[in-house]
Amino acid sequence: MMNAIIENQFIRKLTDQFRRSPLQKNRTHESDAEIVRFSTDSNSLLAITTDSIVEEIALGLYNDPHLIGWMTVMVNMSDLAAVGAQPLGILVSEVLPAGFPEQSLALLQQGIQDACDSCGTFVLGGDTNFGQQLMLTGCALGAVNDRRFLSRMGCQPGDILYSTGPLGVGNAFALSKLAGSSMADIEYKPTARLKESRSLPGVASACMDTSDGVIATLDQLMRLNHVGFELDEGWESNLHPAAKELADAFRIPPWLLLAGQHGEFELLFTVAEEREVELLRSAEKNHWHPLPLGFVTEEPEIRLPLNGEIVRLDTSKIRNLASQVNGDIQNYINQLLVINNELQKGASEYVSQ
Amino acid sequence: MMNAIIENQFIRKLTDQFRRSPLQKNRTHESDAEIVRFSTDSNSLLAITTDSIVEEIALGLYNDPHLIGWMTVMVNMSDLAAVGAQPLGILVSEVLPAGFPEQSLALLQQGIQDACDSCGTFVLGGDTNFGQQLMLTGCALGAVNDRRFLSRMGCQPGDILYSTGPLGVGNAFALSKLAGSSMADIEYKPTARLKESRSLPGVASACMDTSDGVIATLDQLMRLNHVGFELDEGWESNLHPAAKELADAFRIPPWLLLAGQHGEFELLFTVAEEREVELLRSAEKNHWHPLPLGFVTEEPEIRLPLNGEIVRLDTSKIRNLASQVNGDIQNYINQLLVINNELQKGASEYVSQ
Repeated sequence: MMNAIIENQFIRKLTDQFRRSPLQKNRTHESDAEIVRFSTDSNSLLAITTDSIVEEIALGLYNDPHLIGWMTVMVNMSDLAAVGAQPLGILVSEVLPAGFPEQSLALLQQGIQDACDSCGTFVLGGDTNFGQQLMLTGCALGAVNDRRFLSRMGCQPGDILYSTGPLGVGNAFALSKLAGSSMADIEYKPTARLKESRSLPGVASACMDTSDGVIATLDQLMRLNHVGFELDEGWESNLHPAAKELADAFRIPPWLLLAGQHGEFELLFTVAEEREVELLRSAEKNHWHPLPLGFVTEEPEIRLPLNGEIVRLDTSKIRNLASQVNGDIQNYINQLLVINNELQKGASEYVSQ
Repeated sequence: MMNAIIENQFIRKLTDQFRRSPLQKNRTHESDAEIVRFSTDSNSLLAITTDSIVEEIALGLYNDPHLIGWMTVMVNMSDLAAVGAQPLGILVSEVLPAGFPEQSLALLQQGIQDACDSCGTFVLGGDTNFGQQLMLTGCALGAVNDRRFLSRMGCQPGDILYSTGPLGVGNAFALSKLAGSSMADIEYKPTARLKESRSLPGVASACMDTSDGVIATLDQLMRLNHVGFELDEGWESNLHPAAKELADAFRIPPWLLLAGQHGEFELLFTVAEEREVELLRSAEKNHWHPLPLGFVTEEPEIRLPLNGEIVRLDTSKIRNLASQVNGDIQNYINQLLVINNELQKGASEYVSQ
């Protein structure tokens, strides 16, 4: 089931030759960051993750150096949030093109520092090289207290699906930026949900960030846990206002803002019904409001209320699109619109593979 | 004094805006890996480092995928060795060009795994992206027992300078690879000196790996510690046999194999005279032999016996060359030969700035 997704197949090919550390607590795909026992004398586990910003820069999606620096930190901090870790710091490896302007470099570094400030964390070190294209790699380090880490594994049918915040702004930003609109760019500056994440260990049954968009996240959780997800009738009220506005302006069906693969870096997490009160109390204490989004189903499929009917999404087709279009954004959007048209026609007859 | 080196200036510019974590034990430049307190309940410190392989691939210096994978691990493990840390694992972020051959990818991954096996460590995770050129970033994680880490700081005049192994093979490899020779390539497959490093905490007064070659390493230690180094009369006997052979074949002065910036990944370390016996006993127990190379001097200069005279090297000029030639290897070698000619002429009159 994992291998229906091209990206999962590829990761499998890359990691097949690797042996696993006996100190590592998670297996491939099972958590957003790697969880490692650091020392026998400590009650904390170590969380570590690495993520590079490459295609986003090459495609022109990120062309503001401050945003590039900001995202290098945030995508990695978001992985720490998704496992319930408190950040210790980040290492940043930069590849700069020859003649990269001084002013852009200063903005890039400021974006890194601003994101660290926002997360209460620090740059610990890094490396710099020169190459053909600008690209940045972050490697973030965190600590998991009392060895209670969050993973993608463990949701059960009947569990409630929540988001830490409104959805769709990542894809709205990508659309406004890349689809040649005359609209002003959407404001996009996600913040890793570290504060929110503190309410989740011991309460959430599974957790994953939406770095690849909502549908890719639900699809991966579905494949890992052999369950499905159904969104609530009112799911559209959880769209970010800017995302709604853009969907109206572009006349695209709002659910496509969940389908695209440029994420909003919220956490999607599940909670057993009997833990819901506990979650809400803890969230209130930490000054945030979980957004209820749907529930976990027995059937391994992703269902969405659309025009008064429950439709089943072919999420493998939707996810694999991103691997198949070779960076051709217009083609990507067109293919998503084709899927939408099929959905509108076939409605509930449409069955995922 | 640090700023006489273009690379140090650049690192300063990059890091000037960054705030330092109160949990971090080292300052910029002061150690090969970052040292961080992980948790108050642990007696171990965390060591973490990141290094990318970019220019070496772009220049064609590394064109064997197995070597590229191997080096991605080893350059990072070497940093751990230089701080006296035991490796916990490594994360690898790969940027692959479109259409990268399957077979090359398999060799690349095998090189990563083989290097991990050689170091007794593991790939913990990673990230993959597609870009214009192949490049790999490793981020290695280690533990420092009893909080006793090695740093670049602390050598005193009179201390003895040692290497963990023979020198010059990194530059010999680069020369055989890039200078268009008809000679067979030099065998180059460095192994991080993790075993050797176990003998050093509490014994060595300073330690740094030769990732940028011997002279760059001594120059950096000189600037950090406000001391100098003088190599022993017999320093040439510490050249790697393959390096000696290549120097003969190319008719280049052997000391240039210490001057180039492609390192052999040995550790250079210093030991106070009164700790020397302790070092040798510990090394013997760990089955290795430290190579005595020279000693620490009061005057902040790098001195080398050459043709029966002690010459002083202009190490800032030698190091900055690498930043100034823009990847033009032939020009780099020519400039080094010019420096050598000046040295031979001026001999002991030649004074470093």
